[in-house]
Amino acid sequence: MARRRHRERRPQRGDAEIAQLPWRRLVNPYRPIEVLDEVAIERIHLASLDVLENLGIEILSERALDVLATAGAEVDRASGRVRFDRALVMESVAKAPGEFTLHARNPERDVVLGGNHINFCPVGSPPNVTDLDRGRRPGNFADFCDLLRLGQSLNVLHFFGGYPVEPVDLPTATRHLDCYHAFITLTDRVWHPYALSRERIEDGIEMICIARGIDRARLAREPGLITVVNTNSPLRLDGPMADGLMAMAEAGQAVVVTPFTLSGAMSPVTLAGALTQQNGEALAGIALTQIVNPGAPAIYGGFTSNVDMKTGAPAFGTPEYTRAALAGGQLARRYGLPYRSSNANAANLVDAQAAYESQMSLWGAVMGHANMVLHAAGWLEGGLTASFEKMVIDADMLQMMAEFLTPIEVNDETIAIEAMRDVGPGGHFFGTAHTLARYEGAFYAPMISDWRNFETWSEDGALTATQRANTLWKRLLADYQPPPIDPGIDEALKAYVARRKEQVATKAA
Amino acid sequence: MARRRHRERRPQRGDAEIAQLPWRRLVNPYRPIEVLDEVAIERIHLASLDVLENLGIEILSERALDVLATAGAEVDRASGRVRFDRALVMESVAKAPGEFTLHARNPERDVVLGGNHINFCPVGSPPNVTDLDRGRRPGNFADFCDLLRLGQSLNVLHFFGGYPVEPVDLPTATRHLDCYHAFITLTDRVWHPYALSRERIEDGIEMICIARGIDRARLAREPGLITVVNTNSPLRLDGPMADGLMAMAEAGQAVVVTPFTLSGAMSPVTLAGALTQQNGEALAGIALTQIVNPGAPAIYGGFTSNVDMKTGAPAFGTPEYTRAALAGGQLARRYGLPYRSSNANAANLVDAQAAYESQMSLWGAVMGHANMVLHAAGWLEGGLTASFEKMVIDADMLQMMAEFLTPIEVNDETIAIEAMRDVGPGGHFFGTAHTLARYEGAFYAPMISDWRNFETWSEDGALTATQRANTLWKRLLADYQPPPIDPGIDEALKAYVARRKEQVATKAA
Repeated sequence: MARRRHRERRPQRGDAEIAQLPWRRLVNPYRPIEVLDEVAIERIHLASLDVLENLGIEILSERALDVLATAGAEVDRASGRVRFDRALVMESVAKAPGEFTLHARNPERDVVLGGNHINFCPVGSPPNVTDLDRGRRPGNFADFCDLLRLGQSLNVLHFFGGYPVEPVDLPTATRHLDCYHAFITLTDRVWHPYALSRERIEDGIEMICIARGIDRARLAREPGLITVVNTNSPLRLDGPMADGLMAMAEAGQAVVVTPFTLSGAMSPVTLAGALTQQNGEALAGIALTQIVNPGAPAIYGGFTSNVDMKTGAPAFGTPEYTRAALAGGQLARRYGLPYRSSNANAANLVDAQAAYESQMSLWGAVMGHANMVLHAAGWLEGGLTASFEKMVIDADMLQMMAEFLTPIEVNDETIAIEAMRDVGPGGHFFGTAHTLARYEGAFYAPMISDWRNFETWSEDGALTATQRANTLWKRLLADYQPPPIDPGIDEALKAYVARRKEQVATKAA
Repeated sequence: MARRRHRERRPQRGDAEIAQLPWRRLVNPYRPIEVLDEVAIERIHLASLDVLENLGIEILSERALDVLATAGAEVDRASGRVRFDRALVMESVAKAPGEFTLHARNPERDVVLGGNHINFCPVGSPPNVTDLDRGRRPGNFADFCDLLRLGQSLNVLHFFGGYPVEPVDLPTATRHLDCYHAFITLTDRVWHPYALSRERIEDGIEMICIARGIDRARLAREPGLITVVNTNSPLRLDGPMADGLMAMAEAGQAVVVTPFTLSGAMSPVTLAGALTQQNGEALAGIALTQIVNPGAPAIYGGFTSNVDMKTGAPAFGTPEYTRAALAGGQLARRYGLPYRSSNANAANLVDAQAAYESQMSLWGAVMGHANMVLHAAGWLEGGLTASFEKMVIDADMLQMMAEFLTPIEVNDETIAIEAMRDVGPGGHFFGTAHTLARYEGAFYAPMISDWRNFETWSEDGALTATQRANTLWKRLLADYQPPPIDPGIDEALKAYVARRKEQVATKAA
């Protein structure tokens, strides 16, 4: 099986198969790295409850304020400030499930969030998109669709946790309808409606029910949507996000509450302070999901990083980021909540910096036992740009992680003393029976890494990893096959989108 | 403090200071990642004792065979095969110290090996050298000296664990004399004589005694030399290496025994087999050091990686490599021995592949609690080439690791509830008193990473991390100051080198 080709030419369907690991659910069998001891975790826990009780959170949604006042929170209507009694927070958060399944249109793509499960999701929400051929450009629907096709083609990506790029060429008011239709038809995986209003969530719910041929009651029992709600740190939850969060929770769909706590800017300059604030904001949002609908699936999101104190520029994949990602996992486990982290970097192109900052993030996410790694493939420039080349380089890195998470098999066959006896001192294992029986699939075969010697690699064009990635994503897109969908269902989806677009137009007129 | 400059120009002394962390000893405060359970560790342990007892190791040194026969090993003189009774192995290995100090010419650069200490060493032994300006070329003494200067300039590098490049322009028989003199005068750190014969080790011992103004008895009490002995896997120890190992052990200097167990080539295609063979070979070498001189400092070296089974090309920084590095740490700790691992990759240039493979290696080394990370900076092409740009990019990655290993401080000051109260919902922490008191040094300031936005970065030349690294190493070399040395000592060293060169010439004539 030829792995890759390096000559510059137009990739075509029918090229030799691209070596990928099969799609599978991943579990982290190793103990997480703990960067905080139990005393420190309890201090941060108690301090964040102090913050919620005494400082409170500003929530810019009347409906959320109503719900929280009824639940017993102290609500200041004038300012929108909500102060949460610590018992209310802890009792609410305790109702969230520790583990749940999200159901895809294709049941083989169902995913589990919680415990030691780990899921990788492509980049979410960048306003720009880039590749080596066409350069950096604003997000658009054609690239949105190609990134979905690429995500669908990469087996190591478990579900979509956001728009892979924002299609700014589509009208704002109806953009989500086209995006949801693309998610449902170009992929067969769990996907992400935007929690920017109740309406956008309602459309997502209607469309997934059509796609799966189920009603809302069954969707509530077998959730299939997941959305990320960012707090507007410090200590504020915007109205559309709060409304979207409540709409999702009411329908029993999964909400990831992720405070945007960049240390030194939106949170204290000290990591302990940033983590305390992250913890308070995350708990407040998750408490709201449970007050709305006890038992609704919710995820603790950690995104604490730091800024460059000289320029204010956000930084990712820093040592502060890695420690915060690991600490975030400890905090989420403190409450028995599933955990979300990210594969982030601040590089402006796909170079060594992009790779080492990504790795620093990824190790924090994986060894922090994140159940959902958002932005796992394709994120560049601190999230401002989706990169086609980074998408496939990240996929190779994620496959390496998946293999790293496969325990070493230790038994008489693998210890292989007989093979050592066969080969003897100074011999070679290439031709021995033990090797011949196992050489296929013995080791991870990369999609991007080039291990040929310098001379061979030079003669074949001396391509960088990023140039090889350019060839690979084009081959993957050329090979892409849409997952099958019942034509009647697609008709119904199209009819729904058309009807809703008309309604929006009428409303605007 | 300006961090870096991107304009192309000749770097000059007097440029703004380069932001580096100070030189300091590092300790890993986190629990190591364990990829094997205790049962698996014991199986590998027992299997490797089986290998030593039943298959044995070929040792191509008469003197080593004498010593081992006297100690009670079963020696076959015709084949050089040595079979070790398991009690002999375990009793010998138990005599090696679990932790020891290596003494540098400058006592501030003394290093501790063992426990949770971690030390980073530049690349050792590549035959080639490369940089963006001059391209790839055979190793030579001018580059050897520049790489020493660069290593000396980088605070995160603790000592030299090998020649940073092989100076093939110097005559083989006396090359080591020039190299040792360069180590002693261009750096003030612990360094590495080549264990390729007893003579080369003896020269190293004489020269370090002159450099430190001490005698051999004191050198034995306060060791300052460290050498790496690779077994010629499978199951063979070459003569010059065995003789060098014994010369080092006799003098009480540190020996790192590192089997070269590339899975699928020099060891079984299964990781458990490769680790069993690694363990057997490492224990045999370490047993020999202790039989020669009980209590001599010795280090368990792990270098298990895999080859590409399609081409036979060695691969590094693979998921197999990472797991083997972590398992190697578990095995070393099983015997209470200090552990050595590496920062390796198989890329042909300093691109994303070089960075992500390095990170995969580095996480294995760091979280495997390696006490010595060889090749930590500058390794490229599976060790065939030393790269000036990789040297400083790695140094940035190592500094990130050093910061990652610094625990998060959690107390009332760092939790900073008052700062959150000051700032309030929707506010900004840039100007608050808590930030102003701490912003300097709050976060890691990188040497290579560029966090400026896309537009600013583009206007400033759109340089890659590797291009920025090119500027940085030239600035570091321009700023380099040799560490002070007593002129009388340098005279004595020069005289020693001259005398020995004459002796070698006479002997050759």
